[in-house]
Amino acid sequence: MATYILNINCPDQKGIIATVTNFIHQKSGNIVYIDQYVDRENKLFFMRLECEFMNGNFTKEQFSTALDESIAKQYALEYDLYDKDYRPKMALFVSKYDHCLYDILARHQSKELAVDIPFILSNHKDLGSIAERFDIPFYHNPVTKDTKEEAEKRQLELLKQHKVECIVLARYMQIISPKLIAKYANKIINIHHSFLPAFPGAKPYHSAFERGVKIIGATSHYVTEELDAGPIIDQNTTQVSHLHSIEDFIAKGRDLERIVLSKAIQLHVNRKVLVYQNKTVIFS
Amino acid sequence: MATYILNINCPDQKGIIATVTNFIHQKSGNIVYIDQYVDRENKLFFMRLECEFMNGNFTKEQFSTALDESIAKQYALEYDLYDKDYRPKMALFVSKYDHCLYDILARHQSKELAVDIPFILSNHKDLGSIAERFDIPFYHNPVTKDTKEEAEKRQLELLKQHKVECIVLARYMQIISPKLIAKYANKIINIHHSFLPAFPGAKPYHSAFERGVKIIGATSHYVTEELDAGPIIDQNTTQVSHLHSIEDFIAKGRDLERIVLSKAIQLHVNRKVLVYQNKTVIFS
Amino acid sequence: MATYILNINCPDQKGIIATVTNFIHQKSGNIVYIDQYVDRENKLFFMRLECEFMNGNFTKEQFSTALDESIAKQYALEYDLYDKDYRPKMALFVSKYDHCLYDILARHQSKELAVDIPFILSNHKDLGSIAERFDIPFYHNPVTKDTKEEAEKRQLELLKQHKVECIVLARYMQIISPKLIAKYANKIINIHHSFLPAFPGAKPYHSAFERGVKIIGATSHYVTEELDAGPIIDQNTTQVSHLHSIEDFIAKGRDLERIVLSKAIQLHVNRKVLVYQNKTVIFS
Amino acid sequence: MATYILNINCPDQKGIIATVTNFIHQKSGNIVYIDQYVDRENKLFFMRLECEFMNGNFTKEQFSTALDESIAKQYALEYDLYDKDYRPKMALFVSKYDHCLYDILARHQSKELAVDIPFILSNHKDLGSIAERFDIPFYHNPVTKDTKEEAEKRQLELLKQHKVECIVLARYMQIISPKLIAKYANKIINIHHSFLPAFPGAKPYHSAFERGVKIIGATSHYVTEELDAGPIIDQNTTQVSHLHSIEDFIAKGRDLERIVLSKAIQLHVNRKVLVYQNKTVIFS
Repeated sequence: MATYILNINCPDQKGIIATVTNFIHQKSGNIVYIDQYVDRENKLFFMRLECEFMNGNFTKEQFSTALDESIAKQYALEYDLYDKDYRPKMALFVSKYDHCLYDILARHQSKELAVDIPFILSNHKDLGSIAERFDIPFYHNPVTKDTKEEAEKRQLELLKQHKVECIVLARYMQIISPKLIAKYANKIINIHHSFLPAFPGAKPYHSAFERGVKIIGATSHYVTEELDAGPIIDQNTTQVSHLHSIEDFIAKGRDLERIVLSKAIQLHVNRKVLVYQNKTVIFS
Repeated sequence: MATYILNINCPDQKGIIATVTNFIHQKSGNIVYIDQYVDRENKLFFMRLECEFMNGNFTKEQFSTALDESIAKQYALEYDLYDKDYRPKMALFVSKYDHCLYDILARHQSKELAVDIPFILSNHKDLGSIAERFDIPFYHNPVTKDTKEEAEKRQLELLKQHKVECIVLARYMQIISPKLIAKYANKIINIHHSFLPAFPGAKPYHSAFERGVKIIGATSHYVTEELDAGPIIDQNTTQVSHLHSIEDFIAKGRDLERIVLSKAIQLHVNRKVLVYQNKTVIFS
Repeated sequence: MATYILNINCPDQKGIIATVTNFIHQKSGNIVYIDQYVDRENKLFFMRLECEFMNGNFTKEQFSTALDESIAKQYALEYDLYDKDYRPKMALFVSKYDHCLYDILARHQSKELAVDIPFILSNHKDLGSIAERFDIPFYHNPVTKDTKEEAEKRQLELLKQHKVECIVLARYMQIISPKLIAKYANKIINIHHSFLPAFPGAKPYHSAFERGVKIIGATSHYVTEELDAGPIIDQNTTQVSHLHSIEDFIAKGRDLERIVLSKAIQLHVNRKVLVYQNKTVIFS
Repeated sequence: MATYILNINCPDQKGIIATVTNFIHQKSGNIVYIDQYVDRENKLFFMRLECEFMNGNFTKEQFSTALDESIAKQYALEYDLYDKDYRPKMALFVSKYDHCLYDILARHQSKELAVDIPFILSNHKDLGSIAERFDIPFYHNPVTKDTKEEAEKRQLELLKQHKVECIVLARYMQIISPKLIAKYANKIINIHHSFLPAFPGAKPYHSAFERGVKIIGATSHYVTEELDAGPIIDQNTTQVSHLHSIEDFIAKGRDLERIVLSKAIQLHVNRKVLVYQNKTVIFS
């Protein structure tokens, strides 16, 4: 049996739900999951379906062609079609902080994260030993003002060579080049250690501490050209008080960062995130 | 335009989603909301739809008849059909605690709660002045060991007279009779001041305090014959510490009780709660 | 028996804790609560004590004088001394939103809030009926561009006449004048309907919605001359998703605003908030 | 400079705070932290102090002797005295689940956890490779009905040989013998995967799922002879819904278990937990 995930968005129209469900039914597909959302203000319709087909009856290409030839044009559907069992290739970029890396690798090891991790890339050497512990190829790719172009070139080569489909910045401290962002639009997940839009940029815990906030947070988002301004995938917060020093903020923040980043990765890998107008629809 | 809410449950079958959406589409209805859930283990299917029909084209009775005459039998559908704009009649039962009552009446006053409140009933007189402040009829219905039957009889009379459709026990401290429970199955919402199934019954804050828990909670649920054991609608928790006395637990608990009870009421009034096997499906 | 609350701050010095506790012990006082905090970076020391004295043995004035004549100078102590049983006079300023007002009045009615509320002031008439329901004097004090000075003058008169000691802005939508801020430094509590410093100013829910945040919050703070930039007392957050419209943000936000504002009021009334460097120390 | 942590409990008496702070001051100690709590109902007093002494001036033994010879008897003080910089020896017991183990080892590796981990013991072989990755001795200590006594004997030998001071059960699935519990009273930390006292014992996620709760939790506690009934150190919760299967409960629960267990370990290692009447006082 083959299970496909179909993510659709289009202008909202009467009968769109029935049309799509009917289409699948007529191809002998069984819908096992359906979730939808209508942005009434912008008159946009979003739907996520999971549907099962008996093996061999309906390949992904046939599905796609059938959609294109029938309802896709009529309803101006934009869609993504995925094989539910396919394990995406996900590269990790890290710098010196290890907590997010450990968290992802532990979940991967426990089979909780259904991806293949072709390599870990870092601008420092420090985390190479962790990659080794988990038997994953590690590439040290240093970046300086003068070597930016070479570093980016190497990144792109490695990503291409390993057929990477999405990138996780696990407290990676370097700016991602516009070229890479364009190539991996809505496929680079970053964790920012504040509750955006509060405290974007560098040293957010220091800024939070100075403002005397009583809550700190972490935000996972897709990377866009504007720093820390991309569509937010998930956020979480925890309480702090005057008793907490900046070091305490950082320590408490680590737990949040791990959870918020891993949650975003899971949602992305499960094809539950749809992006529009710099925001995300997160299907249930 | 008429908007209907259709809550369905039935044995899970291939094509059920397409069948229902198609049915509505063929009656010229426009589905504006759809949410579903499949309990794979028990092979049960649940769906909630909201659909619009041009005025006069399709009354609730016609809708119901059409369902019965076509797909309802074939798919063994059990369903509830509601007019989205209808304001249910909701009675409040209270004792001496006023915090939940104030909360509900304030929301009602601000138009946040789309119900009619025909009366407030209490086994004590204390809260009569609050009912008066908000211009709602108040019935003092005392209950003693000897007068249980009369008290129940009066309750049933008032509920019948005012055509009450659901009852909210807003920290009402009397046991509800089996007769009333049967009459209002899944229509009596209670707030229990603990995180069920921890600490059912009397004085849960005292028990929580003695156990030395670090978190207390509140639970809203439909009333069944077994005390505090009915299907849970919503729960929420808050942190406590050794610094908190039983009075502090009670004070902090009040905020939880208000929020958890009001959330359950909203979900019920919006027809988003489906009950099965003593559990609830809460549609988004 | 008299119970006093003593809030101290001074440069951190060796032996300061022992010195203060010893001082009280020698005056035959019994310390029943002590909490302290040292800001090591700025070498500042903060302490809050509650101490009991047998009736008549030690008045507040005697206590103050004794401090001044002995350790206050030596250690450069800045302190506030309060009678624990004293009920401060707290005025409420409101506009049209009623949820925070209802919440405060309900808690006041239930004896949960140990203050006297001499009056409620509003720039609109709408909430006058609620004030009436709770038997509290209501002053309609409209404000326009041309009448700003008169309106402020009336505010100051009423505050003086009623000997108001602190002011709560319960979704009061007018800017507070610098004169009033100076007169009531760290005594005007405001609720801002966002998680500061995110979305200060007008329409924060709209801005939050546009940013596509997954969490919204509310912040209570003391009012300073810079809008929404004063020392934060308490904050709380709740989750939102793409399913929530701006109206939903506003509705969910109301619950947060009520709880966060009331918590700040309690902390202030219990003398548990100490302000320095635009931040707050919240004693346990 | 030597820093000591002094945890005290005794019957509550007038002047106790001043007496203790004065005692330290007279020994030329500088109190840098003080937190206290009075259980008024049981008239019990608890205090935690951190105090600095110039090197050599006052050893731990001298401190202890001085206390015993002066105020300890007079005030019936029970106390524990610790060297703040001392790294306790903490053994880990595990079975097959790896998430808590990974979490602890990652934090230990990052210097976040100031302990020495002499060994990891398990009734299964599975996690031996993880111990190896982190260069920590691993002992496979299988337990069957017939070998219980031998297994316990080996445990006690290893604990004695490695001078272990506290034990963490990181999802260790075997019952701890009464002998071990007695030897390590309030020094064996367990994580139970429910929000106690709800769902003690086996398969709590299954029971939670059947009850249809909307919140699941995890609890860390000291092990006592009665299963899952020991003094609670920390708890945390997360929301669930009908959408979550038992596997989802388990997956979400893992994140809670990691955080709640690690928090308890930190509190214990920092000497911030005081146990009485089967409850804990957690100092700030």
